[in-house]
Amino acid sequence: MSNTFSAWNDTIVALATPPGVGAIGVIRLSGEKSIAIANALFPAKNLSQQASHTLHVGMLKNGNEELDEVVIALFKAPKSYTGENVVEISCHGSPFIQQQIISASIQKGARLAMPGEFTQRAFLNGKMDLTQAEAVADVIAAHSSAAQQAALKQLRGGFSSDLKILRDELIGFAALIELELDFSQEDVEFADRTQLQQLITRLTQSTQSLINSFRLGNVIKNGVNVAIIGRPNAGKSTLLNALLNEERAIVSEIAGTTRDTIEETLNINGIILPFNDTAGIREHTLDTIEQIGIQKTFEKIDQSAILLYLADLKKEDAETVFNTVLELSKNRATHPILVFNKADLIDGFTEFNHWIDMQKKFAEKVPVFLISAKNTVKGLQTVDDLKQALYHLVIDEKMNTENTIVTNARHYAALQKVAECLSDIETGMQCNLPGDLLALDIRRCLHYLGEITGQVETDRDILGTIFGKFCVGK
Amino acid sequence: MSNTFSAWNDTIVALATPPGVGAIGVIRLSGEKSIAIANALFPAKNLSQQASHTLHVGMLKNGNEELDEVVIALFKAPKSYTGENVVEISCHGSPFIQQQIISASIQKGARLAMPGEFTQRAFLNGKMDLTQAEAVADVIAAHSSAAQQAALKQLRGGFSSDLKILRDELIGFAALIELELDFSQEDVEFADRTQLQQLITRLTQSTQSLINSFRLGNVIKNGVNVAIIGRPNAGKSTLLNALLNEERAIVSEIAGTTRDTIEETLNINGIILPFNDTAGIREHTLDTIEQIGIQKTFEKIDQSAILLYLADLKKEDAETVFNTVLELSKNRATHPILVFNKADLIDGFTEFNHWIDMQKKFAEKVPVFLISAKNTVKGLQTVDDLKQALYHLVIDEKMNTENTIVTNARHYAALQKVAECLSDIETGMQCNLPGDLLALDIRRCLHYLGEITGQVETDRDILGTIFGKFCVGK
Repeated sequence: MSNTFSAWNDTIVALATPPGVGAIGVIRLSGEKSIAIANALFPAKNLSQQASHTLHVGMLKNGNEELDEVVIALFKAPKSYTGENVVEISCHGSPFIQQQIISASIQKGARLAMPGEFTQRAFLNGKMDLTQAEAVADVIAAHSSAAQQAALKQLRGGFSSDLKILRDELIGFAALIELELDFSQEDVEFADRTQLQQLITRLTQSTQSLINSFRLGNVIKNGVNVAIIGRPNAGKSTLLNALLNEERAIVSEIAGTTRDTIEETLNINGIILPFNDTAGIREHTLDTIEQIGIQKTFEKIDQSAILLYLADLKKEDAETVFNTVLELSKNRATHPILVFNKADLIDGFTEFNHWIDMQKKFAEKVPVFLISAKNTVKGLQTVDDLKQALYHLVIDEKMNTENTIVTNARHYAALQKVAECLSDIETGMQCNLPGDLLALDIRRCLHYLGEITGQVETDRDILGTIFGKFCVGK
Repeated sequence: MSNTFSAWNDTIVALATPPGVGAIGVIRLSGEKSIAIANALFPAKNLSQQASHTLHVGMLKNGNEELDEVVIALFKAPKSYTGENVVEISCHGSPFIQQQIISASIQKGARLAMPGEFTQRAFLNGKMDLTQAEAVADVIAAHSSAAQQAALKQLRGGFSSDLKILRDELIGFAALIELELDFSQEDVEFADRTQLQQLITRLTQSTQSLINSFRLGNVIKNGVNVAIIGRPNAGKSTLLNALLNEERAIVSEIAGTTRDTIEETLNINGIILPFNDTAGIREHTLDTIEQIGIQKTFEKIDQSAILLYLADLKKEDAETVFNTVLELSKNRATHPILVFNKADLIDGFTEFNHWIDMQKKFAEKVPVFLISAKNTVKGLQTVDDLKQALYHLVIDEKMNTENTIVTNARHYAALQKVAECLSDIETGMQCNLPGDLLALDIRRCLHYLGEITGQVETDRDILGTIFGKFCVGK
């Protein structure tokens, strides 16, 4: 298997925890010499005589100089993350000390790890396939529970184990068909065409359902942008706060976790909905639309999967608003949703019934909500109803988030290639294509299947792209 | 012993690594229920049946929901950092997942730890004395090897073990003298006054040498400011780069460590010399001195322990420069040092000898350097010589950095109180003060000695101040 790094047999070292000051930091070593290197810095015990999966407390020293009081975690090959000897040094969370420990490890024979090099070694040592290695980065990047679940499923093998079984069957057929070629004068068929047909059908079904899952996978991994449009004072800030408030309160309770990721980002049932261009939400109004032209607004809507049009039901004409929404969403892939705000200001039954009628009338063409972002109005919808509607605009009920889901664009592209090859094989069989031509299509199909899991010789550039995106220390 | 926290018997949880995205993050639990709480989230194994100091790999689950694939480190009471059961969960370095694991631990019965609460528990459980607990924060904050060595020495007991022995002896005398009071009618002396005198002398010596070490301790812990003053184009930037360059190159090699701490900060033999007001270094010139008045310049010099005056030896008159330096440093605590730059432009022997004579003449009153920040000039001093001179202006040769050093202002203040009490006892003995009055002074002395190590009932406010400065998770 190819390797983007020059010397794979050496021992690598890196800070595994985020840089900065904290209670503790962890420095990770992997490679044949990692235990020997740690041992040279740890006079308290002979680490090479200790069992795997044990912890050892003591002073780390570089010669006579004390570096820090540390806890050393030992993982002996092959029972480790990388499949090599791994030592994790848990030290005080001082950047200065971490730097000294890394320097001392380098002095004793380690070299600095490159981004993703620990996980790449896990892949190269057969501890995980390529989809699992890619899942590691996805787990770290996950910022919603749906994305986390999808990444964890992929980390544990996900769809690649199913694909591997089907691929192995297909390899069997490829071998039989290629055997036929050696006996081509005798017109024998070693490969049972009916069984091959059945296998191709099963593979096509699996591939197609994985391809179909990518739309959901993409939504889960990357979220769906929402553009909020409306006149000034329609209550955009209030609505945004009402939508986000509960979550913010939960997160701010837990110290040490960053709040940045959820600001202006709504998480509904684990799906992330970032509100497109927060500056825009607050400043980009219909007045400015009139000033800078409708073109800019369309660009913003084009970048979003949902267009939420917010109107003040006391100050705006319902029919005009309705027509504007139809106009803005015409011939576009975006889902429009019309929200009339300040329903708590509706005065008396006549006005109330008028609005209910309006809602029914418009609802044939676009979902309409009558709400108050400030107070719940009896008999009308709530901010929570709006949340659920936003969710169902993105996630069809027939999409099952429990199923195996493809979230990775590289896998999606390879699966599309697989589907093309399968279609070619199918067509070839229907035309009674000779075995040698069929075998070519099957080989191509096997190649793309193997590319997903890394079972075929993977291009250096692909590996570089995959692992280069990791952080150092993983 | 008093406790600033309401419920000490509960189990606490916190993120122990710096917040943010990284390869891994560590969540720490401490308390009686910490193993049970981790067990409730870790179906793979029964953790309560595992040995202390072992590592366990598996999926962390909250009910049916998978949280992350983690490594669990077990430390059973009392063999742990806090002296309680401690569990460290090493998870993927995703803020979202860390937050979920912390939330799940809280659901199972833990509560969020307050800043420094883990170390406070270690202190309250007798795993370390107060000076050692304080050393933990110093180790984390250390950004030079001298500060790191001093903090590590204190972490391992430092001077507090010596003080404890002397304090125990003094307690013995206090008891004997107080016993005399019960027999005051009989005029007996249980406490041998000669032995007491010897003990007081030994204590005074120890205390005084610790007090004296604080000047060095403070330099080691906080560094010493250097003010650079000079006309524009005297070569301040070039000199600064020459002084800092080597270090910068070393640090930038190691990814993941922050460079901010050393920018514009010189580290000589482990002593940190921040250059006072970096903006000032580049912009604060003699021309502006003339404009905004000499007052501002004096303020800057007053904040610095060293005044480095840099002059262009080709463009400035040596005598004028020399007199300016004397003027600037007159009646001030700052150490002046005069540097004539651009010595590589000296033209011929006559000029060279002239400068050597000048240097000799001035050197009687102020250290004078003839250097070139750009090129080394044969027969003259180098940038490295200047570095060593700066170091020796701060650290006297008779200061031994190997000795025990007081770096903590709280300890320094308590030691000064101890010294006062010792002096009072000494005076009292010389005046043959009655036992009851002597006993009072001894009690006061014991109190301040105990305050340093936390052996006496420590004020809640003091504990709050000490541990409140820690990060959460330590």
